[in-house]
Amino acid sequence: MPVNLNPPVAANLHQVAGVRLGVTEAGIRKANRRDLTLIELAPGSRAAGVFTQNRFCAAPVQVCKQHLSTGEIRALVINTGIANAGTGEQGLQAAQLTCQAAARILDISASQVLPFSTGVIMEPLPVERLQAGLPAAQAALKADGWFEAAHAIMTTDTIAKAASVQLTIAGQPVTITGIAKGAGMIKPNMATMLGFVATDAIVSQPMLDRLVKEVADESFNCITVDGDTSTNDSFILIATGKSRARFEAIDAPHWNELKAAITGVARQLAQAIVRDGEGATKFIEITVAGAHTKDEAKAVGYAIAHSPLVKTAFFASDPNLGRILGAIGNAGIADLDVTKVKLWLGDVLVAENGGRAASYKEEDGAATMKPAEIMVRVDLGRGSAQGKVWTCDFSYDYVKINADYRS
Amino acid sequence: MPVNLNPPVAANLHQVAGVRLGVTEAGIRKANRRDLTLIELAPGSRAAGVFTQNRFCAAPVQVCKQHLSTGEIRALVINTGIANAGTGEQGLQAAQLTCQAAARILDISASQVLPFSTGVIMEPLPVERLQAGLPAAQAALKADGWFEAAHAIMTTDTIAKAASVQLTIAGQPVTITGIAKGAGMIKPNMATMLGFVATDAIVSQPMLDRLVKEVADESFNCITVDGDTSTNDSFILIATGKSRARFEAIDAPHWNELKAAITGVARQLAQAIVRDGEGATKFIEITVAGAHTKDEAKAVGYAIAHSPLVKTAFFASDPNLGRILGAIGNAGIADLDVTKVKLWLGDVLVAENGGRAASYKEEDGAATMKPAEIMVRVDLGRGSAQGKVWTCDFSYDYVKINADYRS
Repeated sequence: MPVNLNPPVAANLHQVAGVRLGVTEAGIRKANRRDLTLIELAPGSRAAGVFTQNRFCAAPVQVCKQHLSTGEIRALVINTGIANAGTGEQGLQAAQLTCQAAARILDISASQVLPFSTGVIMEPLPVERLQAGLPAAQAALKADGWFEAAHAIMTTDTIAKAASVQLTIAGQPVTITGIAKGAGMIKPNMATMLGFVATDAIVSQPMLDRLVKEVADESFNCITVDGDTSTNDSFILIATGKSRARFEAIDAPHWNELKAAITGVARQLAQAIVRDGEGATKFIEITVAGAHTKDEAKAVGYAIAHSPLVKTAFFASDPNLGRILGAIGNAGIADLDVTKVKLWLGDVLVAENGGRAASYKEEDGAATMKPAEIMVRVDLGRGSAQGKVWTCDFSYDYVKINADYRS
Repeated sequence: MPVNLNPPVAANLHQVAGVRLGVTEAGIRKANRRDLTLIELAPGSRAAGVFTQNRFCAAPVQVCKQHLSTGEIRALVINTGIANAGTGEQGLQAAQLTCQAAARILDISASQVLPFSTGVIMEPLPVERLQAGLPAAQAALKADGWFEAAHAIMTTDTIAKAASVQLTIAGQPVTITGIAKGAGMIKPNMATMLGFVATDAIVSQPMLDRLVKEVADESFNCITVDGDTSTNDSFILIATGKSRARFEAIDAPHWNELKAAITGVARQLAQAIVRDGEGATKFIEITVAGAHTKDEAKAVGYAIAHSPLVKTAFFASDPNLGRILGAIGNAGIADLDVTKVKLWLGDVLVAENGGRAASYKEEDGAATMKPAEIMVRVDLGRGSAQGKVWTCDFSYDYVKINADYRS
């Protein structure tokens, strides 16, 4: 059961001029499920991406990086079922054949296609089924296809994830719509498999390349379900340029408004992944302040978010707060002065001066652990940088889902 | 249910001349359980220790380090129930009062006592109950008390852990006996809470200081249950000097025999902790070879051993081996050439050349995942160093145990 996450409503997802989406059942791994998505971009669109840091990065990720460096992107092909990761030379060929097939039906070149795969690792992609399915996906292309696409890219997700906003920047209407998938193997280190956000704003390529990293750092790079960085993480930002709002450089007026709006959509998608994390019953926001650097703050946030002991305590609504102190102590800060560390659960001060706060009462801690949304706040007392991490708890269902996944 | 681990038998635990152990019920946290252990060492004994790297290191750990640096150790006091960690200044006082109380009844000085605590973090140690219990523990002191002590130091352990060996080195009989506890919050980074190994050999203090680190690196520092380094990890090596076997320097004849024997006992205890890991149903040995350095090999081993996705696949006996590749790719080796990585499950070659091995058959992988003991072997193909990590799987019971622990 996702935590405080409603399914997207088709009517709330604004179309982005220049983007059409089509889905079909290609039977990649299982029959009777929509598992192939084609996204077509109008000429003049720009795209930028960030990808997994996992050394076993998937074949489609390798092809994406290459194609993004060479030219104008006109199409994205996304399959579920098989991740095409850990598939060696054969996997690379399958990703290339995917691009060639899409290029053929859209009359563009293969290097203008970005391929994405998600699903089981180390099994071969049945590329002939994907090729056979593409014409049906093309026939289904439509500007209001975001809702169907959000569904078609799901794997262990229990709910589709989409976010959309329309706003006026510098007097011009701008639309931003995005979709994402992911519930397990989630600790993005650049981005998560898979997030796609499109805007109709005009954004220069250098600014888009910069924006995709900055947005990822404030959204997908702040979440974790299980600490396992996937082989296929990809976050793609698209600017079709069909709006009149123009952003060519960092000093463009209203640049920060665009950035904030895109970050808002990406963050909503990233948090949706955590809310639908495998087996999740709680959504936890961890804020770490008083750090030397933002990286240090996030390292402490992740140390808390990855501790199985902390995650099971959240599941149990048990204010077993020593486990959080233990995790802070394990975050790799060699010169941490624990007497300066403060820990709050919601508004309740839990620990200070190296131990339990004098004012702390167990019943106050228990009360803040009850709700489905929990705020953890840490002040390291050694600097002014801060960072946030969003995560979920660890439940019986996490084990069940992952022990059963392939069967 | 511990994995292939039989309870120790009192008769198999050899006495170590110069060591007496006594246990009692002090009611530290719960009534009717033996929760206080006193270990008395004969004059002339030497002790050395390694301790947790967790910055929130427990009060008794801080006192241990101080006392080990100042003089001859004559007694150890171990309580369960409360970890006396995250307890600030008050916790330090409680640890010091513990030492003073033991010193008083044994007629030694407080700095000759090492205190140890294990249990819930961030709750105050009821030191007056501990003080009140010490005379009964003293009255119970006996040379054949290892078996009772192994039981009395347990917390979430389901089975007592002890190991013992008698051998002849250089014509002299040498005895080595040890006990340990731990089942969760186990990813020792120096040692695990709690391991105590004693020998009657004569070992000089510099050699003992060196030996305790080397032994820990080959035993307790190779295990993980959940990746959470405890606040209280302590491994203590004691040499009473009552045997005639004398080891004063690294070039002492037969030094390697002593080291191998002590490492063997420590490794048996360390593996016992994993076999009794919280909720464990499988025991997994991960060997990583072909690394640049031993640290690199162990980092890859731990990346595999800590992945919740890998651990749940072991629980399910599912050869979902892409998850292991994913974990290897996440181990932080920036220049890893994945085409050189080989992965075996037991004797079955699973992956090479960046993907599934041509010879690999799913049924062979499935067969090696079935037994309670699983061997994972990785060759990184980039050097000649190797390292081992022992771990267990992640089951429903892990979640159950940790969601229920305090209740």
